[in-house]
Amino acid sequence: MSHPGADRVRDVARLAGRSARSKRRSFLAEGPQAVREALRRHRSGTPTVEQVFATDEALARHPELAEPTDGVTLRRVTADVLAAMSDTVTPQGVVAVCRMLDVGLDDVLAGSPRLIAVLCQVRDPGNAGTVLRAADSAGADAVILTHGSVDLYNPKAVRSTVGSLFHLPVVLGVPFADLAVRLREAGVAVLAADGHGDADLDALQDASAARRLAGSAPDDEGTGPRLEAPTAWLFGNEAHGLAEEELTAADARVRVPVYGAAESLNVGTAATVCLYASARAQRR
Amino acid sequence: MSHPGADRVRDVARLAGRSARSKRRSFLAEGPQAVREALRRHRSGTPTVEQVFATDEALARHPELAEPTDGVTLRRVTADVLAAMSDTVTPQGVVAVCRMLDVGLDDVLAGSPRLIAVLCQVRDPGNAGTVLRAADSAGADAVILTHGSVDLYNPKAVRSTVGSLFHLPVVLGVPFADLAVRLREAGVAVLAADGHGDADLDALQDASAARRLAGSAPDDEGTGPRLEAPTAWLFGNEAHGLAEEELTAADARVRVPVYGAAESLNVGTAATVCLYASARAQRR
Repeated sequence: MSHPGADRVRDVARLAGRSARSKRRSFLAEGPQAVREALRRHRSGTPTVEQVFATDEALARHPELAEPTDGVTLRRVTADVLAAMSDTVTPQGVVAVCRMLDVGLDDVLAGSPRLIAVLCQVRDPGNAGTVLRAADSAGADAVILTHGSVDLYNPKAVRSTVGSLFHLPVVLGVPFADLAVRLREAGVAVLAADGHGDADLDALQDASAARRLAGSAPDDEGTGPRLEAPTAWLFGNEAHGLAEEELTAADARVRVPVYGAAESLNVGTAATVCLYASARAQRR
Repeated sequence: MSHPGADRVRDVARLAGRSARSKRRSFLAEGPQAVREALRRHRSGTPTVEQVFATDEALARHPELAEPTDGVTLRRVTADVLAAMSDTVTPQGVVAVCRMLDVGLDDVLAGSPRLIAVLCQVRDPGNAGTVLRAADSAGADAVILTHGSVDLYNPKAVRSTVGSLFHLPVVLGVPFADLAVRLREAGVAVLAADGHGDADLDALQDASAARRLAGSAPDDEGTGPRLEAPTAWLFGNEAHGLAEEELTAADARVRVPVYGAAESLNVGTAATVCLYASARAQRR
């Protein structure tokens, strides 16, 4: 077992802070699931992982983490060293230093995306992670975080994505000002998820199901947004919802129905319902 | 401003612990949203709140909390006293001592329920809260936690329900052994949400939409579960999913489709998708 010097331990631990991450363009993935997904991405051809630090115990339990990987250094460390490197109380024996993986908006738009989740000023790392995970499950082509949203590389946000951060392209720090215009130019409709929206998601799903069952061509009837068309969903800040500027820029404001007594939907719940509605409409 | 004695402060603080809660059949709701929802339930005729402790600042910001309420004592306290009473670092100036509000399984089944969420051995308070909130949004008639699930009255679970705990009946500590039988006897189909299920939720939704659009009577065609029928969804433990016993007891195992690269769905995401699918099928 090698003993990394105090300098190296401190260097890794500093990645819990935003300024060290920015300077080094790297961040920390903690725990076997996140590290496994990071390594999988790396092995499939996108350089992602720089170093892995793990205890013997963790490697015994998760042997796939110890498989030699081009360009990745694996260091065996003690549980104490690992705890000193990690932001979390229980890193489960393994952390990886990863390269930042966000891409540019141009790259995403060039790929003819059909489903995008846009987080507008979402501040809570747990909520951002939940939405990213829901986007991954729904097969979204990208997640965009606008300027003013939480830093997705902060350890709590990384943890809450449970590996989904390594599955789909993310674009960070996008100024909202011309985002909707750029999306529309790329043929992507912009739908605002809004508790007071005038379009009802159930009605849009019914219309989409009726078109599918009738076998009608995608552009032969009706008005209003079609869930089967390429779509970017805007999800707003957890306390204030979408700002006026964001609502105004959207093609339509869509209300997720609340059938019970809940006052409003959690942003993670709303995103799950909206993204799955689009995925269902698009994938058959 | 009255100064509650150290004994009273300690009595309230002890409600963070399970044994004090059990002995006194009461628990703590923290923060203005939870306390407001508890008071609303109380005022609508179900005794819920015993005492409210709040700072002057919180009452100035949330005057509805200070409205006199039958049977509820309001005490103004300092921020220090409030912090000593509360489990959370930022109780936002108000806590309420509430009576436990869970009901019996018989009570729920007697009410001809159409949609129920069952948490089977769900251990994380945040996950339990997310499912309860999703059940509330989807208009579920009740939430049932089986024996071995998290204590829903623990402060973290209460917080994570964001007030939904006061919106719909909950049944706690139900032994799983005869639950499915009891549900079926009450005319409620039992569907297991399972990543490896043989029924596909999308297919069930399509069949339900086709029946609705064709205007066919609810029982004139097809086999397999109908989402428009009274349904209880079983959601499993976050690490291990549903146990064999739970899967076997269900009428059908239903798979929520994963369109992307995510390995599995978070229990909150799966519950949101399943409960909203049932709500959509049932409510038109």
